[in-house]
Amino acid sequence: MIDIKIEKVEVTLGVDIGGTNTVIGLVDRQGQVVVEKSIPTQAHEPSSRFFTRFHETITSLLVSIDEKYQLLGVGIGAPNANYYRGTIEYPPNLSWGGVTPVVEIVRKMLNLPVVMTNDANAAAMGELVFGAARGMKHVVVITLGTGLGSGIIVDGKLLYGADGFAGELGHVIVDPHGRTCGCGRHGCLETYASATGICRTVLEKVASTSQQSVLRKINAADITSKKICEAALEGDTLALDAFEETGKILGMKLADTVAHLSPEAIILFGGLAQAGDLIFKPTHRSLEENLLGIFKNKVKLIPSGLPEGNSAVLGASALIWDELDKKKRT
Amino acid sequence: MIDIKIEKVEVTLGVDIGGTNTVIGLVDRQGQVVVEKSIPTQAHEPSSRFFTRFHETITSLLVSIDEKYQLLGVGIGAPNANYYRGTIEYPPNLSWGGVTPVVEIVRKMLNLPVVMTNDANAAAMGELVFGAARGMKHVVVITLGTGLGSGIIVDGKLLYGADGFAGELGHVIVDPHGRTCGCGRHGCLETYASATGICRTVLEKVASTSQQSVLRKINAADITSKKICEAALEGDTLALDAFEETGKILGMKLADTVAHLSPEAIILFGGLAQAGDLIFKPTHRSLEENLLGIFKNKVKLIPSGLPEGNSAVLGASALIWDELDKKKRT
Repeated sequence: MIDIKIEKVEVTLGVDIGGTNTVIGLVDRQGQVVVEKSIPTQAHEPSSRFFTRFHETITSLLVSIDEKYQLLGVGIGAPNANYYRGTIEYPPNLSWGGVTPVVEIVRKMLNLPVVMTNDANAAAMGELVFGAARGMKHVVVITLGTGLGSGIIVDGKLLYGADGFAGELGHVIVDPHGRTCGCGRHGCLETYASATGICRTVLEKVASTSQQSVLRKINAADITSKKICEAALEGDTLALDAFEETGKILGMKLADTVAHLSPEAIILFGGLAQAGDLIFKPTHRSLEENLLGIFKNKVKLIPSGLPEGNSAVLGASALIWDELDKKKRT
Repeated sequence: MIDIKIEKVEVTLGVDIGGTNTVIGLVDRQGQVVVEKSIPTQAHEPSSRFFTRFHETITSLLVSIDEKYQLLGVGIGAPNANYYRGTIEYPPNLSWGGVTPVVEIVRKMLNLPVVMTNDANAAAMGELVFGAARGMKHVVVITLGTGLGSGIIVDGKLLYGADGFAGELGHVIVDPHGRTCGCGRHGCLETYASATGICRTVLEKVASTSQQSVLRKINAADITSKKICEAALEGDTLALDAFEETGKILGMKLADTVAHLSPEAIILFGGLAQAGDLIFKPTHRSLEENLLGIFKNKVKLIPSGLPEGNSAVLGASALIWDELDKKKRT
């Protein structure tokens, strides 16, 4: 009788807790997603019911893959997540109440190492481990979604700062008398440079100019960054101007970010970044115009290197792969 | 016969290369300056003559202390210094030409470990090792001198970024259409928040208001931040307003810095910081007003903890003590 020992493939679990859905995937060290499942988050329910459903899903997932794979740990990306404390704190889009000790709950559930960070930090870690930032040491990842999130890599590690909240670039101030922001202040970068921000820019232009535009035929409530992108690709000058202005403001503030951090690259990630040249060109032009001499023509402005559909799960998984790699080294 | 073995006191050499003078001091691990000497830099001469004088001074210094002290290494703070390369590059205030390999020259001279960084980074390291930042992990040090320099500590280490130039906070942009800056751009923070900046603010107020002020009796060329401070302490409203405005702008931009780095403390250092409450109060008020909610009432704004006269030498010495400590640990 020949004893054939098959070595199991090591995988981690990447979890992206969103306001609508929670996506769970098993990812190997090369960034291949072995299997992925999505469950509704049911944001209006208390967290206990979410974790019951989460447990059932994971259990069935693990049963189905038991033979070939070995699960090493869990990485979680979530809004309002605190890396240091392993908690989700006062999430505006989840009815979970004050502070939920997510890492502790999941660790007890699976008896495995668990780490959690906010979604923008997870995106940055995804780029570092599997995406466009591989091999880099100093990188800034900007997520241009409904808001503007950021993850900062310094010396190959996520920057958390004194309290775990470093990298809130959505809330650097463009104009202290500018647009009202969800944070209660005025003129934050995300009120200009985000999917929502560019919609506000279009609405301002509709009000303040007499430029013809297909966007004038859409209700204010129905304007989306996707529709602005489509209009711009058709040559709509109002839409093109809105991209130009968004890039101008984003590039100017990113020049300040470079003066702080001197990164090798800035990665634009998320919905609005998918507008490609429409957003990259004016942002890059404005960045270079506003950079201090010693930084000019040095900082790359590049798109995400993660496959679109899996980026959230890959980012969360990258977080735990990075921790496991670090433990191996020490 | 009794053999008495006296253990030597370990010291490092701190060197601060300035446009006018170069200060050299021996500093022990507790931050005591054992001896300090100053030589004229003679900025108009080529570097070779400087290093000849430097060598003579060091040699006589070492002969004088030979019995009791053991020199372990050299730390250098200098304008336009590149930490990664160990070079001073295109210094505007020294006739040294392009690139001078200072670390290599001094290492060959003394056969000891040598490190060099720019003066603001050295100040930050001085605060971390001997001053107000002892025991902290995430700190920003702002030097308010002729210009505005900064040194950023992340995870207990100086942040250099991809090319060694991280932490150029003097050149974040307050207003892209604002004051001309020595860097060739407009509206950089140091054109407002520095000894020179506050003088410009006073001159603007002299021109644009009819406020009475003792500062109206001084030639524009003779106005200094010290005279503005003296006037403010006498209750001169124009001078007080100038401090108020300087603090307002500095605090606003420091709020952006906190959104990037989430430091535990920001230390104000240098000439203008010695105006005390006159500059700290409006800066702190503006910082808190402009901070994102999660950062409010968390970040300390504190003065330097280094003795005024020795701060440059202590900073340079701290740089090499830090490297030697790191080597010991590994």
